[in-house]
Amino acid sequence: MPASLTWNRYGKSSVRLVKVRRSTEPHDIVDLTIDVALEGAFDKVYTGGDNSACLATDTMKNTVYAFARVEPIDHVESFAVKLVEYFCEKPGVTRACIEAAEHPWTRLHPHAFARSGEEEWTTTATSDGDGLSIVSGLRGLVVLKTTDSAFSGFPRDQFTTLPETRDRILATSINARWTYAGGFGDFGRRDAIRAALLQAFAGHKSESVQQTLYVMGEAALAACDGIVDIHLSLPNRHHLLVDLAPFGLDNPNEIFVATEQPYGLIEARISRK
Amino acid sequence: MPASLTWNRYGKSSVRLVKVRRSTEPHDIVDLTIDVALEGAFDKVYTGGDNSACLATDTMKNTVYAFARVEPIDHVESFAVKLVEYFCEKPGVTRACIEAAEHPWTRLHPHAFARSGEEEWTTTATSDGDGLSIVSGLRGLVVLKTTDSAFSGFPRDQFTTLPETRDRILATSINARWTYAGGFGDFGRRDAIRAALLQAFAGHKSESVQQTLYVMGEAALAACDGIVDIHLSLPNRHHLLVDLAPFGLDNPNEIFVATEQPYGLIEARISRK
Amino acid sequence: MPASLTWNRYGKSSVRLVKVRRSTEPHDIVDLTIDVALEGAFDKVYTGGDNSACLATDTMKNTVYAFARVEPIDHVESFAVKLVEYFCEKPGVTRACIEAAEHPWTRLHPHAFARSGEEEWTTTATSDGDGLSIVSGLRGLVVLKTTDSAFSGFPRDQFTTLPETRDRILATSINARWTYAGGFGDFGRRDAIRAALLQAFAGHKSESVQQTLYVMGEAALAACDGIVDIHLSLPNRHHLLVDLAPFGLDNPNEIFVATEQPYGLIEARISRK
Amino acid sequence: MPASLTWNRYGKSSVRLVKVRRSTEPHDIVDLTIDVALEGAFDKVYTGGDNSACLATDTMKNTVYAFARVEPIDHVESFAVKLVEYFCEKPGVTRACIEAAEHPWTRLHPHAFARSGEEEWTTTATSDGDGLSIVSGLRGLVVLKTTDSAFSGFPRDQFTTLPETRDRILATSINARWTYAGGFGDFGRRDAIRAALLQAFAGHKSESVQQTLYVMGEAALAACDGIVDIHLSLPNRHHLLVDLAPFGLDNPNEIFVATEQPYGLIEARISRK
Repeated sequence: MPASLTWNRYGKSSVRLVKVRRSTEPHDIVDLTIDVALEGAFDKVYTGGDNSACLATDTMKNTVYAFARVEPIDHVESFAVKLVEYFCEKPGVTRACIEAAEHPWTRLHPHAFARSGEEEWTTTATSDGDGLSIVSGLRGLVVLKTTDSAFSGFPRDQFTTLPETRDRILATSINARWTYAGGFGDFGRRDAIRAALLQAFAGHKSESVQQTLYVMGEAALAACDGIVDIHLSLPNRHHLLVDLAPFGLDNPNEIFVATEQPYGLIEARISRK
Repeated sequence: MPASLTWNRYGKSSVRLVKVRRSTEPHDIVDLTIDVALEGAFDKVYTGGDNSACLATDTMKNTVYAFARVEPIDHVESFAVKLVEYFCEKPGVTRACIEAAEHPWTRLHPHAFARSGEEEWTTTATSDGDGLSIVSGLRGLVVLKTTDSAFSGFPRDQFTTLPETRDRILATSINARWTYAGGFGDFGRRDAIRAALLQAFAGHKSESVQQTLYVMGEAALAACDGIVDIHLSLPNRHHLLVDLAPFGLDNPNEIFVATEQPYGLIEARISRK
Repeated sequence: MPASLTWNRYGKSSVRLVKVRRSTEPHDIVDLTIDVALEGAFDKVYTGGDNSACLATDTMKNTVYAFARVEPIDHVESFAVKLVEYFCEKPGVTRACIEAAEHPWTRLHPHAFARSGEEEWTTTATSDGDGLSIVSGLRGLVVLKTTDSAFSGFPRDQFTTLPETRDRILATSINARWTYAGGFGDFGRRDAIRAALLQAFAGHKSESVQQTLYVMGEAALAACDGIVDIHLSLPNRHHLLVDLAPFGLDNPNEIFVATEQPYGLIEARISRK
Repeated sequence: MPASLTWNRYGKSSVRLVKVRRSTEPHDIVDLTIDVALEGAFDKVYTGGDNSACLATDTMKNTVYAFARVEPIDHVESFAVKLVEYFCEKPGVTRACIEAAEHPWTRLHPHAFARSGEEEWTTTATSDGDGLSIVSGLRGLVVLKTTDSAFSGFPRDQFTTLPETRDRILATSINARWTYAGGFGDFGRRDAIRAALLQAFAGHKSESVQQTLYVMGEAALAACDGIVDIHLSLPNRHHLLVDLAPFGLDNPNEIFVATEQPYGLIEARISRK
């Protein structure tokens, strides 16, 4: 048939890896979910049933665990780079990508920890003929402010019913990804970037989610010289004021229903000039 | 047909309520998901299509929001009791139950907060002819210890393949429910109970999840005189040692795969004598 | 401390088992998730760290797979009974419970299948000194009717705002559990019970979810002589009429928003007289 | 600060819309989840707090419901095109995108339906200065074959432990997206494309997921002249043979454990020449 394979990629996803550093006191733990994806000259696997170039995805998984034993994993970024460089050398591979999600734990005791919640720290290392790129980030960091958030002055057309407001709840789940300059960076600055995002969110007198997003992006760039841009994706987790008038009660911005659907979604990339 | 209605219950579930206390500085927030359930003389609704006794579940939802405006919600337990007492007075009701899950937030700033993760604090208030009972708890508190956990000396039959171990990772998601004496209690002791559970988990030299569960239950009872028993449900979140021998590597209890299925589930109730 | 263990249970949950019957043409497949739970004289495991009576949950998992090889699994109920009888014989066990969820597949081809969706068929077999009980059911069967559903004549109090309606959408996710007489039954009647539930839901002129629930329960009892009661749990998946008047449009029961929170929850047990 | 906004997009996500066609007998239902996203000259919203160009996402939601009343929605694609053309005309917009997921229902009765499971039918309509593109697809169609699947002849390196097999279970969740030529197409051919995908999956003697993917893509292109390419993403839902030898039992490809993590992920695009 007149068809052709115009793109392909394959790999292993959701490799769950926990490394305990026992040589030190107190113990330390790294908890990762890793995806490996390869692109390259694999056409005959698809079109000819010829597996001679097809590194098994099970082998990719084994490779991750073996590297985890040998590498210190001081920063997830460094570990991802080691893996991506290794996979790029395999026959036929023209592009390799390692995605890692780190699940943070809080120390309770020299040998015990509690999960810090839904927040995850992410890293994507990609290598191809044009070199190496490293994008790190965080997601699932849910925040809310009870004031200093307005939304007014927006256009009204035949479908507009939303009232203007100068005081509302603003809540979102921060999803951020920043790119390190030259493919490398000071991977120890994640906490500083995170703190800058939170401080900007909390302190900003917001006219819109968009404006707050921009201020957060600026703050992140200011917090870490080594990053060249940041992409933010902020779902607007609407908190709707409940109408208590039918029950003879006022509601001075006090009782809200938290909704999940539908939600606004605001995204942008802020770059260093 | 020779059939009869032998039990019934109905209500409204997943009422999402956020209350902001703006009258104080800094602002305070309470974030709850509430279920209302009623039992009683509602047979004609089912068997006769007669709705004259059927309080609409939409009315239950409205009632929750109206009470939230009027009540301070200093403790979720007190709020649940107010609701359950109100619903018990409605015509036909013989038993009312309010279940509340509180979603904790951590303060970032006088007006801003971050979600503390998946952990939830629960309360169930039930009222019927025999009086009022209050059961509180927490769930989704995920913890892990890297040592001081063994599992050995268990019986071996024809289906046993598990090796004995004197040192393994122990991880679980704590689900606890404690009953207040006499239907009432010192609702401000949740933090003390939580701390006792965590300290017992972390500090215990464990021979089994069962033994650690018992020590945790004892610690909770010791931490709060006002509770008469505690029910603990602890899924064993297995972390399996990866076999690195095929790659010429040892694995001195360092590299693990975290698994979700299957999992052990250990449950018990510990009561004050 | 003056504490005592007043109840305990443990076991293995979420054992994923797929059995292919290759000896026949066409191939046949059974896809199950199984939970094993045991109660009994296990106090020393909890209070003494003595594991000599503690059958490992890993052994329970192995037992399930070994039985799956030997047993035909013509009906999930028969398989659950074999397992529960085996575990009841283990030292110290006073009560054993097997819960199984079957994930149905639809045949595409003699050797190929498609998953039938979120619906699951459930069985719980429990054995103790009082004998054996078998409860089967289904869950996740989502249904909707576009008419023949009303809700009116309900009481109005100070918190009631819901308008009466003689024509609304009625949608739910059917969750049913029926008990077999004498611990045994004609396990081949699941399809007949399911068909009766669906026919009653679709054909009923409903005054409330409660009334439709009762008619469904009656129909199930009529469809299978071997069951003595049925428990139904029906979440009301509200479809709210969208107010299009601000846009100069009517909405003759045509455009709805499907909501997930909050939801009504209607439950009852219907028993054979 | 030396930062600039280099990309932005915003909109409303997860607008839940159910339309009932009551004018016909039997009744008909369309169940959609819709996302609206706009790009354009919105910089001042982000950098200046000037909302004069910022169409509220609440207005987008209202627009979807108003259009749903007026448009017949015979095909989701036509409805998405109407919306995308409308939003492209709003001030400042340079690119609009409508994503729709249709949740299929199976008819039970002239006025009643059952959800067909997790499968969803998707459409993305995008319009910018370069014209209109329409990509449709399906996702969540879970399939399994019990034989005619092999994986052998793959390269072995120092991390390879996977044995070769000439007979295994192959299971996946089909995720497909196809592009209509010239932005338009015969939107009534979805069933034919779906049937071609299933028939190719079931009938193929597979040397790898990759090879089966290619055959499925070819079959889809052959089934519908109006599409120019198809992208397939096939997670390999591994079914691992259980080792029963420790229990003195063989396992002639009959007892499997279905696993969720990790999983292979195979993706490719097949284009018409």
